[in-house]
Amino acid sequence: MCRWLAYYGSPMMLDAVLYRPEHSLINQSLHARMGVESTNGDGFGVGWYSEYGDGTPAVFRDIGPAWSDRNLLELSGHVRSSLFFAHVRASTGSAIQQTNCHPFRHGRWLWMHNGAITDFHRLRRDLCMAVDPALFSSIEGSTDSEVMFYLAVTFGLDQDVPGAVARMAGLVEQVGKEHGVEDPMQMTVAVSDGVRLWAFRYSSQGKTRSLFYSSKAETVRHLHPEIDFLREVSDDTRLVVSEPLGDLHGVWNELPEGSYTVVPSGASGDYFPFVPEFPLDRPLVPPGEWS
Amino acid sequence: MCRWLAYYGSPMMLDAVLYRPEHSLINQSLHARMGVESTNGDGFGVGWYSEYGDGTPAVFRDIGPAWSDRNLLELSGHVRSSLFFAHVRASTGSAIQQTNCHPFRHGRWLWMHNGAITDFHRLRRDLCMAVDPALFSSIEGSTDSEVMFYLAVTFGLDQDVPGAVARMAGLVEQVGKEHGVEDPMQMTVAVSDGVRLWAFRYSSQGKTRSLFYSSKAETVRHLHPEIDFLREVSDDTRLVVSEPLGDLHGVWNELPEGSYTVVPSGASGDYFPFVPEFPLDRPLVPPGEWS
Amino acid sequence: MCRWLAYYGSPMMLDAVLYRPEHSLINQSLHARMGVESTNGDGFGVGWYSEYGDGTPAVFRDIGPAWSDRNLLELSGHVRSSLFFAHVRASTGSAIQQTNCHPFRHGRWLWMHNGAITDFHRLRRDLCMAVDPALFSSIEGSTDSEVMFYLAVTFGLDQDVPGAVARMAGLVEQVGKEHGVEDPMQMTVAVSDGVRLWAFRYSSQGKTRSLFYSSKAETVRHLHPEIDFLREVSDDTRLVVSEPLGDLHGVWNELPEGSYTVVPSGASGDYFPFVPEFPLDRPLVPPGEWS
Amino acid sequence: MCRWLAYYGSPMMLDAVLYRPEHSLINQSLHARMGVESTNGDGFGVGWYSEYGDGTPAVFRDIGPAWSDRNLLELSGHVRSSLFFAHVRASTGSAIQQTNCHPFRHGRWLWMHNGAITDFHRLRRDLCMAVDPALFSSIEGSTDSEVMFYLAVTFGLDQDVPGAVARMAGLVEQVGKEHGVEDPMQMTVAVSDGVRLWAFRYSSQGKTRSLFYSSKAETVRHLHPEIDFLREVSDDTRLVVSEPLGDLHGVWNELPEGSYTVVPSGASGDYFPFVPEFPLDRPLVPPGEWS
Repeated sequence: MCRWLAYYGSPMMLDAVLYRPEHSLINQSLHARMGVESTNGDGFGVGWYSEYGDGTPAVFRDIGPAWSDRNLLELSGHVRSSLFFAHVRASTGSAIQQTNCHPFRHGRWLWMHNGAITDFHRLRRDLCMAVDPALFSSIEGSTDSEVMFYLAVTFGLDQDVPGAVARMAGLVEQVGKEHGVEDPMQMTVAVSDGVRLWAFRYSSQGKTRSLFYSSKAETVRHLHPEIDFLREVSDDTRLVVSEPLGDLHGVWNELPEGSYTVVPSGASGDYFPFVPEFPLDRPLVPPGEWS
Repeated sequence: MCRWLAYYGSPMMLDAVLYRPEHSLINQSLHARMGVESTNGDGFGVGWYSEYGDGTPAVFRDIGPAWSDRNLLELSGHVRSSLFFAHVRASTGSAIQQTNCHPFRHGRWLWMHNGAITDFHRLRRDLCMAVDPALFSSIEGSTDSEVMFYLAVTFGLDQDVPGAVARMAGLVEQVGKEHGVEDPMQMTVAVSDGVRLWAFRYSSQGKTRSLFYSSKAETVRHLHPEIDFLREVSDDTRLVVSEPLGDLHGVWNELPEGSYTVVPSGASGDYFPFVPEFPLDRPLVPPGEWS
Repeated sequence: MCRWLAYYGSPMMLDAVLYRPEHSLINQSLHARMGVESTNGDGFGVGWYSEYGDGTPAVFRDIGPAWSDRNLLELSGHVRSSLFFAHVRASTGSAIQQTNCHPFRHGRWLWMHNGAITDFHRLRRDLCMAVDPALFSSIEGSTDSEVMFYLAVTFGLDQDVPGAVARMAGLVEQVGKEHGVEDPMQMTVAVSDGVRLWAFRYSSQGKTRSLFYSSKAETVRHLHPEIDFLREVSDDTRLVVSEPLGDLHGVWNELPEGSYTVVPSGASGDYFPFVPEFPLDRPLVPPGEWS
Repeated sequence: MCRWLAYYGSPMMLDAVLYRPEHSLINQSLHARMGVESTNGDGFGVGWYSEYGDGTPAVFRDIGPAWSDRNLLELSGHVRSSLFFAHVRASTGSAIQQTNCHPFRHGRWLWMHNGAITDFHRLRRDLCMAVDPALFSSIEGSTDSEVMFYLAVTFGLDQDVPGAVARMAGLVEQVGKEHGVEDPMQMTVAVSDGVRLWAFRYSSQGKTRSLFYSSKAETVRHLHPEIDFLREVSDDTRLVVSEPLGDLHGVWNELPEGSYTVVPSGASGDYFPFVPEFPLDRPLVPPGEWS
């Protein structure tokens, strides 16, 4: 299990969001309240889109606990961004290494995940083989999360984010079924191209880990004028988080099971249904046995 | 490029071999004399067979330079073994992480490598697919060396070490050829099951990186009575090394191009020819494209 | 706050003690039950006396959490000792670095500590100045624990362990008083010379953190024949631990407030009173101000 | 030995200076040309003044080699500053830990150093005692460089930079003399308050390690229009470096022995003589022996 946070809105110092709230993500690295594991000390990462460079986001990841990392604290106090991801990791067995830390990056895309593919070690080969061969060598770590990301890229993240994620989830469920794995998918995923961010909550079992999004900044300001970092932000500023950063009434809304949200959101509402999609024309997975 | 050392013989404190020689492996981590890169500071590892446990060797690997690692120094001063491997790494681009450090272990087997598969990023997927599906999920890192190891296990390391390594090398050459890679294989490999150790020197181009084995302890003692750690060792004690640990005359013998050696060696001689073997019945590698 | 364990007795594989018990020290690194902090993820260390070498114990320390450290697991499965220390750290602010990890070593001595000197930053200079000048440069880190150790060495650890620790504690209380610090000392300390081990429990306030020692192996075997690692150990085998490794009745005995124990113990009893001793002839601490 | 670089001038992406030059500092971490050691792989750091926050510079330091550090590369590609320091370290024995990495920070001050106090272990205690007691607990590491910094702060860095550094150097020479250390000081130091930067080159022996400053940007542009990162910078943009970042004629000027420079410089010239100053009213250093 892990905990994550995605921020979209007015340019903000990272530490205002990552460190200062009452029950901040850094605090959650040591004492999460929700979820299977209360400690998320197996590495961390932040990814941010900056005003500099070519649009490729920066990624800073390390393998120690976030709560004691001085570089993360330094960085957060000197970097400002209007769109950033942060993640604290609890490994369920895979190695503690930078390449297993979130967020993952490909081109202008950032991706992070809380959840697990059940019995991933049994499905890993088939899932890896479904990754676009041109992307295969970009896989550097050993997590399900990274493979999910490259599957989504394979399935058209560039053209259609919800569709690509739905096809990725569909493939995981199909491959799981082929291997006799019940309820293979459990995921809350955030993904961004630097312009918008999407957050997904879905599990095969229908009991997905928690995911919340903040109310409109305008609403929150009225309810809680004491919250510093929302005071001067634009109305479309939003946070999506694994668990609320505090106990304030009216600030945090649960994203329902089997749905996703887009930030900034259009007029049509706050979230949409998410249904895995079966990728019909999947190439035959070879047995891989030497006869 | 990397540097490595394999020891077989009388039980020996690790530090006697790793630290004390004039041009020790630890010294080579900072100042190698031979090879492409003089600095091998991108992680290190030792693997040793011990008198304790079930025959599975211990592996200690870390991501900093060997020359300054205090834990390695401590360990080496308090661990004794009659068969151990040590490796200092110079990455050519793959991530600096424990799972990319040598030696690799599978069951009772240890494996380490100096060299490279040319354009590995292009061949990686096909090579990974040829790994026994039951082993695929054991791959934790992103190096060519680890994939070579699991290919050798796939091809029967348990039954026939030289044959398995020959088939691995043959597959690499075949896949390389299919992708238009000239001279795909460049390797000096050490492998052990805890009873014997095998060392291979081979490259497609016929210009393989250096590899040396020590003369019989008896011979060395006569030539150089001043060498401490060979003083009381058995006659079949041997070292195989990427580069000599000193400049003494009569101690170090180059393993010829395209050959391998076994320690302890039988009566028939010191080394044997090594020729890659084409694995005839290779399963078809699917295109992996979504049509 | 930290958690620690000291083992004395029949030669034992480290993992039998560190990993296998129900509520092992490694488990306590993630989920301690007692004490101020439940997570002890800010580094760890083991120190062991081995049959090899010159009597100097080996020390293996690293800065990540113990629960995920593969090297610790490897080492523990291949190293055997009849006297070893292990420690998992929860920093209260001082840097996460090897030189702040326990156990500390000086010559043949090992030292580890759970507790804190209140307002150490205010007392640190005066305490450091009281360290024997010949030892001052051995201080590599920034913890109170290391300074306490070198003070104890300064005060005659080599000749009289309880006396040296009492004088160290006395100095801390005296310097604390001079700086207006109430209840300056809070400590559970283990120290060994490779022959015996001493464990101390003391705090100025009389509310010292928990410390337990195991019953005689003979007693435990009778009560709990199911405990593997105590099955074949000698009768004088003992563990001293910050918190019990399990819930078994009759195994764990609390060391009382203001007392210490020695293992192996003589005939006279299991523990002795511990009272800080005022070091009468303390050299004048200079004001250190540039007039 | 270490290598460092200080930049002052037009706002610049860090990577333009740290990575892109032909013989960049990152390149020097692996292959320095000048100096005692060619490898500077024992940690690194950057410190930068940013447009955000309260004027306190950010510090990012880590213990691995700079050449392979992905976080440093990421950061450098997304952080811009008009005044920054970077340092690659070659330890001469002191621990590899963040708190021994440069630059050091105190308030708005940054400090970095290449050189050594001869026999520092013998002088360390006396030098530490001369540090303002209110600053003593800020010392977190075990280097001479950090003690030199806090001595300079003690001696009035806030009021008079050259004077404070001169008194620090004077104290080191005095304490060295008292301990019979010949030629105790060897230093090239950079220090900044965020407005200006000062660089010092001095050694007791008069054979100080190399230090260079760049010619006026205007001059360099005329000589070498091909240098990208100097193309659009202001005329007062300057670099001070341990060794030149390339071989271009007319770009790099050696700072003479026993001198210092200030950037931006006033009208009076490029450098000034540096002479250690004896701090007359030094408090008596107590013997520190327990009689």
